[in-house]
Parts: sequence; C-alpha cells; structure tokens
Amino acid sequence: MSAHLTTEQHVEKLAELLDGIPVAMLATVGPDGTLRSRPMAAQRTPFDGALWFFTQAHAPKVGEVEWREQVNLSYVAPDQQRYVSVSGAAHLVRDRGKMEELGHPSPKAGFPRGLDDPDRALLRAHVESA
Amino acid sequence: MSAHLTTEQHVEKLAELLDGIPVAMLATVGPDGTLRSRPMAAQRTPFDGALWFFTQAHAPKVGEVEWREQVNLSYVAPDQQRYVSVSGAAHLVRDRGKMEELGHPSPKAGFPRGLDDPDRALLRAHVESA
Repeated sequence: MSAHLTTEQHVEKLAELLDGIPVAMLATVGPDGTLRSRPMAAQRTPFDGALWFFTQAHAPKVGEVEWREQVNLSYVAPDQQRYVSVSGAAHLVRDRGKMEELGHPSPKAGFPRGLDDPDRALLRAHVESA
Repeated sequence: MSAHLTTEQHVEKLAELLDGIPVAMLATVGPDGTLRSRPMAAQRTPFDGALWFFTQAHAPKVGEVEWREQVNLSYVAPDQQRYVSVSGAAHLVRDRGKMEELGHPSPKAGFPRGLDDPDRALLRAHVESA
C-alpha cells in the first residue's frame, strides 16, 4: 500500500497489516539530523487512524518529536515477510482517559507505578501515509 | 549499546547484534520532511564497519539519500526480542568488484539480469552510532 490514508478502506487495510505485530520501531530525527529508532510496544486496541504508544514524558525520543514531529514507524513480522512503513506526525499527549482505554502499560515498560506515575504519557502518531 | 562506533570492540559487538537478521528497514528523510522506511536485504558478508545493500540506482530511496544522507537501519528479530537501531550516512556506490564480493542479488530483488543490469548499484551506509 503506497497510497495516502484518505479513506476508510485504507485504514482497514493498514489495521490488517499491523495486526498481531507487538512492537514497532519508532524512527525520529534529532536536532543534529541523526535518525534514531527504538522499539515501542504497540497498542492492543484496534488501529483507527492514529497510533498510540506509552512513553515517559521526559524520554529523549519525546524531545526529538517536539523538535521535529515527523516520524516513521516500522512494523516487522519476518516470519510472514511483513514489512510495513507508516509515516506520520507524533505528539505528546497527557490524557488519563485515553491511557485507561489503552490499558495499563507493563511494569517492564518502565512504569512500576502504573497509572499514577507522573512521568507517564502517550505519544500519538497521526498516520499520513503507509 | 549506545556508544559511538569508535573501537574495534564496538564493531564486533554490533556484528553480533546484526548477525542472522536477513532484512533491515532503511529509514530516510524525503525533501518534504517525511520519514519513510522500506525493507532491504542485508548483506551476507560479516559487518566490518559499513553496511552494504543492493539497490536500483534510480529508486526513490536513492534520491532521498542523495538529498539527505542521514539514514537509520532497524534490524528486528522479534522472536529473540532483538531490536537494533543503526544510525549513519548512506551513499550510492557503483563498484562491480564490491558487488561481486557481496554476491549476486536474488532475481526477487529486482535484478533479473544480475551483475549485468546497468541500474544495479550499492548503497553503502557508514555506521556512526548504534
């Protein structure tokens, strides 16, 4: 799929492509122009046009996104030869209601205090093309 | 590993991390600032400080690299929870000797004429950090 996400069909198709891939690689551009990527636990709720990830509000990746909002998300399932590239713009969102909807992040993700961790936030990636 | 690749030990460590992952996701920045990624067949020769990929010389990704040389390569092996981010600068290289050293790309990679395809070239990513 190389088209822009303008129709419901595209959203449905992308939802299928992302389904069952538990980790995405989030690529960002730093102030020095360096591109970095890191694994992010994918949301367990169905994709509806935006991608959500739990993050620490003060993580370096958040600083990079605040500096330049354009990001890429790679979803890779090598055993199925599924390689999906999603381009979009990412923003930090502090919305407890949305966090509750997405479910508690695992303690492994760096939030031993769960919902009550003041550094807990969300990155919302608005999908522009895939 | 978050250090810069300045020593032989870092190269050896990265070679271990990349070993056995057959496909990398190459992320580039387009002229409009959009980050895109696409799967690239990883070289079968051991990593020695640079990463090499067969490409069509006129592929859009080559245009993006010529516009902005900074790239990111993600190597993902989900079953081993291995997620490796490599940052570097990429350049188009037309070097038949190096192509022969790396081995013939598969016809699947879009080169039915193998070595004799005039559009066949290499992308060389100089690794800066990982």
